[in-house]
Amino acid sequence: MTDPRPVGIFDSGIGGLTVLAALQRHLPGERYIYLGDTARLPYGTKSAETVVRYALRAAEFLAGHGIKMLVVACNTASAAALPVLEEAMTVPVVGVVAPGARFAAAGTSGKVGIIGTESTIASGAYLRAVHALRPEVEVVARACPLFVPLAEEGWWDHPVTHEVARLYLEPFIGDRVDTLILGCTHYPLLRGAIARAVGERVRLVDSAEAVAGEVADVLARGALAGPAAGGLRLLVTDAAARITRIAHLILPDVAVNLELVDLAD
Amino acid sequence: MTDPRPVGIFDSGIGGLTVLAALQRHLPGERYIYLGDTARLPYGTKSAETVVRYALRAAEFLAGHGIKMLVVACNTASAAALPVLEEAMTVPVVGVVAPGARFAAAGTSGKVGIIGTESTIASGAYLRAVHALRPEVEVVARACPLFVPLAEEGWWDHPVTHEVARLYLEPFIGDRVDTLILGCTHYPLLRGAIARAVGERVRLVDSAEAVAGEVADVLARGALAGPAAGGLRLLVTDAAARITRIAHLILPDVAVNLELVDLAD
Repeated sequence: MTDPRPVGIFDSGIGGLTVLAALQRHLPGERYIYLGDTARLPYGTKSAETVVRYALRAAEFLAGHGIKMLVVACNTASAAALPVLEEAMTVPVVGVVAPGARFAAAGTSGKVGIIGTESTIASGAYLRAVHALRPEVEVVARACPLFVPLAEEGWWDHPVTHEVARLYLEPFIGDRVDTLILGCTHYPLLRGAIARAVGERVRLVDSAEAVAGEVADVLARGALAGPAAGGLRLLVTDAAARITRIAHLILPDVAVNLELVDLAD
Repeated sequence: MTDPRPVGIFDSGIGGLTVLAALQRHLPGERYIYLGDTARLPYGTKSAETVVRYALRAAEFLAGHGIKMLVVACNTASAAALPVLEEAMTVPVVGVVAPGARFAAAGTSGKVGIIGTESTIASGAYLRAVHALRPEVEVVARACPLFVPLAEEGWWDHPVTHEVARLYLEPFIGDRVDTLILGCTHYPLLRGAIARAVGERVRLVDSAEAVAGEVADVLARGALAGPAAGGLRLLVTDAAARITRIAHLILPDVAVNLELVDLAD
């Protein structure tokens, strides 16, 4: 028994392509339909009410495309909207916060750092998710608003990015965290600069990798695995030239073909 | 004869508050109603089609508030949507591109630089506006995508901003421009860093200042000047805490009170 319906992936923009890449690597037999709400990105600087409204509309749009499960590949939307999305959808919903928190809680000896957008950090979602698993763990959180624009500028290994990483992440060194959650889908692109800033002693948790394991579990438990056909559709709500350029940066081995869709905005 | 109706000001976010500040300085007797479309900012990374759609909706919303003229205090929207807005509105519409280009063309000895968002630069609007006035002027344009996030981080006089400014603006020094148009409403906040990067020899054109003169002209010509009452309403489509914080950074002397509105999004 296989289920040929696609796995739906939703992100505020194209940072979630790092999650898609991890899913394709671990589950190459699935069909994927990715929706990036590029007309209204970023979510990370907006209020929870606005993020919930946008996320619901995107999820309903993907439901209309017959998906068998929804991956919310956006930390901000996962942090703000996951319960609402689970309530609204009839298929399983997986966010990026819980898998990342699980990886972090499993390996730490007691001090975990979290970085993300202002909205993700303000939500406290990672803090709660880590404490739900291990209440004794000390958690230090910090927003890093310049990391997304630096990643999108393509300055992944650039002196300016190294300096910004040093300034943002210095407090974590003083706090002696042993684990750092990359709580934004763009941050794996800056992994080298982040690793250099915090030092080798600190384990980096990439929620894109963590979520792939969770998706595999959900597909297995629900007898939802695909018929090994593969396939990908990339939908966006705005197709500015820079979106294509950044998508190529993130998916260098994929023939990126963005389809423009309208969410009745 | 005075006209008590408010002057409407529209921006994608709160960068346009630099234009509002210039207007209040030059025309303190007017009432102002400012609309920042913070739920969908930034416009500068999005396609012209999307920007036109958003700008039209914002303009219609302000028209519903009985404005006597519309100031499009957003370079991206001015560059992409001004003709459409002029067509749709029954009151005078002033953008930021034409006044900035006029200031630049008036003072240059032949080489003008333009910096702005990717969308503003890609539109070629400043280039056309300068050439419409002085076709012989050589124009060099460059997008500076990190300037808005750096301004919003409050790093106006920060070593990282100085380094980014040096990297972005170095080509203008080689090109020997004598005038540089700050083609984005956030950029006046980084004026010090920009001036340092290009050197004292280069005149900086701040379109916020340029647009104030144009608005005064339109009010005088149409017998639309206000009854010296003053007054300000600040409307936003998303009221995240950071929006209030940045508004305070830009308007340190104003009691910032943001009203949340819904554009039926």
